[in-house]
Amino acid sequence: MATVGVIGGGQLGRMLALAGIPLGLTFRFLDPAPDAPAGEVGELLVGPYDDPELLDRLADGASAVTFEFENVPVEAARRVGVLPGPVALEASQDRLVEKRLFRRLGIPTARFDDEVEGFPALLKTRRLGYDGKGQRLVETRPSPSDHVLEELVSFERELSLLAVRSRDAEMRFYPLVESVHRAGILHLSRTPVAAAPQALAQAYATRLLEELDYVGLLALELFETGGELLANEFAPRVHNTGHWTIEGAVTSQFENHLRAILGLPLGSTAPRSREAVMVNVIGHEPPRQAILRIPGAYLHLYGKGPRPGRKLGHVTLLDPTAERLHEIEQLVS
Amino acid sequence: MATVGVIGGGQLGRMLALAGIPLGLTFRFLDPAPDAPAGEVGELLVGPYDDPELLDRLADGASAVTFEFENVPVEAARRVGVLPGPVALEASQDRLVEKRLFRRLGIPTARFDDEVEGFPALLKTRRLGYDGKGQRLVETRPSPSDHVLEELVSFERELSLLAVRSRDAEMRFYPLVESVHRAGILHLSRTPVAAAPQALAQAYATRLLEELDYVGLLALELFETGGELLANEFAPRVHNTGHWTIEGAVTSQFENHLRAILGLPLGSTAPRSREAVMVNVIGHEPPRQAILRIPGAYLHLYGKGPRPGRKLGHVTLLDPTAERLHEIEQLVS
Repeated sequence: MATVGVIGGGQLGRMLALAGIPLGLTFRFLDPAPDAPAGEVGELLVGPYDDPELLDRLADGASAVTFEFENVPVEAARRVGVLPGPVALEASQDRLVEKRLFRRLGIPTARFDDEVEGFPALLKTRRLGYDGKGQRLVETRPSPSDHVLEELVSFERELSLLAVRSRDAEMRFYPLVESVHRAGILHLSRTPVAAAPQALAQAYATRLLEELDYVGLLALELFETGGELLANEFAPRVHNTGHWTIEGAVTSQFENHLRAILGLPLGSTAPRSREAVMVNVIGHEPPRQAILRIPGAYLHLYGKGPRPGRKLGHVTLLDPTAERLHEIEQLVS
Repeated sequence: MATVGVIGGGQLGRMLALAGIPLGLTFRFLDPAPDAPAGEVGELLVGPYDDPELLDRLADGASAVTFEFENVPVEAARRVGVLPGPVALEASQDRLVEKRLFRRLGIPTARFDDEVEGFPALLKTRRLGYDGKGQRLVETRPSPSDHVLEELVSFERELSLLAVRSRDAEMRFYPLVESVHRAGILHLSRTPVAAAPQALAQAYATRLLEELDYVGLLALELFETGGELLANEFAPRVHNTGHWTIEGAVTSQFENHLRAILGLPLGSTAPRSREAVMVNVIGHEPPRQAILRIPGAYLHLYGKGPRPGRKLGHVTLLDPTAERLHEIEQLVS
C-alpha cells in the first residue's frame, strides 16, 4: 500500500485523499491545525510546516510527497523532495519572479512596475497574497518596495486552465474554465467556455510545465482581453477552479495529480457532462436538504466551522439550467 | 457535523464513508479486525459486534446507525436502533424465514423443502451462508435439519435490483443489473440488461420494502427463467452488484443509502453512461498501471491483503468495448 505525504491538511488535501483512497493509497498530512479537514481521511501530523522532525515523519516511507497550498516554505519542500518540485513552488511564491518567468517564456502578462502608465493601478505584495488579500489600488507610483505595481486590466473573462504533466513528460489539459470572483474570492467556475482560446492557453501552459519540468497538476489563471490572453498567476497544485472535475470529468484533477506524482498513467481529462458549474459555499453552512433536492447538484463540505469569507464547501451542478443555478447561488450565499 | 455509526468496517463501510464525507458526515465503525478497511476513513472501534459497551460508544451522538453486512446479531442491532430496522435484518438472516416472506408477499421463489421433486437439489444452511458458502448438492431428501432444501433452478440470467426507500416512504430503483458468478463469488455485474423485466422486479421489491417498512438501500437478487422472476434472496444493505453506481449513476448506492437513513432527499438513480460493467478483483493485487491505462476504467481497492477468494477491490468500466472488458478480466483474474 503506497503512502502519499501532503504538506497542508486543508480541503484540497482532503479531496486528494478521497480521490486516492480508492486507488489503494493511504495519506499522511502535516498541518498546524489539529482539526484540519484532511484529518478525517488520513494520519495528521500537527505542527509547523517547517518542523524538520515532522517533515521527516511525513516523508518516512512515502511513495511521494506533495503539497496542497503554495506558501509552503521552500526549504521544507526541498527537505522532503516534493512533487511538483521546489522550483515551481518558488516561482509561484513571488509575484515578481512569476511575472518575469511568464515574460521569459513569451507568455503575455499585464504591464507591471516601470511599464505601468495609468493610475489607479494595483499594488500587490510579492508574497503570501491569496483570495484578493495583499493587494490594493494606488493612485501614484510608490517608492521602491517589496511590492509589484500592476496595471489594471479591464478583461472580458477570467479563465483558468488546469494542466497535468506526468513523470515521463506526458501532458493533458482540461477544458478551459471561466471564473467569477466576488469580493476577491472565487464565487463560481463554469465549463465549457464559449469560443474558448483553448489552443493558445495550452501553448502557454506547455511552456510553463516544460520550463519547470513540472510533475503534477497546475492551474494557470488568465485574463482574456481584446482577443488576447494575459497570464495572471499560476498555482502549482490542485485548484478551486478544478473542483468541477470530481463529477464533471472522466478523471478528477485530484486523481490526475496523484497519478502524475506516483508515476501512474494519466487519466482522461474529457468532460462527462454537457456543462458543469461549481459554486463555492462561503462563510456559513448551506441548507443540505434544499441543495440535495436539486437535480444534478453535488454537495461537498469540507468539515470546517463557519466563519465570514471562509470556503466551507462547494456545490457542483452538472448540465445546469439557469433556474437550478440561480437556486444554488441563493442557497449558498 | 452529523456522525454515522456503522456495524462492520469492511469495504462496504469504507465506500459508505467515501460517499458520505463529502456531504460533511463523519463515520464511526465497529469491527473485530484492527486493520478493517474502513479504519482509514473514520474512527474504528475494535471488538465483537455484540459488545454492549462498544455498541453504546458506536451510537453515542450518532445521527443514524446502520450496518454493512447482514450477519450482525439482531440483539446488537436492536440495542443501537439501526436503519434499516432489525426486522429486515432478521428476515435476511434465515433463508427459510426469507423464503416464506417472499411467498407471503406473492413473490415467486424456487420450490423449497417439501415442494422439491427432483434431485440433485441444493441443501443450504439457514444461517450465515454467503458467497456460495454453506450450500451443497444432495441426491436424496435429508432428515429434518437446520437447512433448507431448494430446487435447482436452470435460470437464463441472474439479476439484481437495487432499491432505496427514504424515511418518508419515497422509493427509487436503479436499472436492473445482470450478474455472473464464478465459484460462487460474484465475478461481474453489468447494466443495462437487454429486455429487462424492470417493472416486475420493481413491483416485487416494492412489496418487500413496504412490508419491512424499510429505510435505506436493499438489493433483491432474482433468477430469470422462462420469462418468470424467482426471488433468490435479498440483502438489507449496500451491495456488490451496486458498485457500478459510484461512477455509473447520478447518485451512488452508498450516497443514497446515507441520504435515506439520515432523512435527506433521495438522489437520482439514473445511469450516467450508456453501459457500465463492474469486475471484482479477487484473491491477488491487480496490476495498477495496466488497469489505469484502460480508457473508462475506474479502479477501487479496499486496502486488504491478498488471500485466495478474497474480494480485494473492483474495477468499473464505463461504456465498455468487448476488448477493454476482456483486458480487465485478464488483469484481475
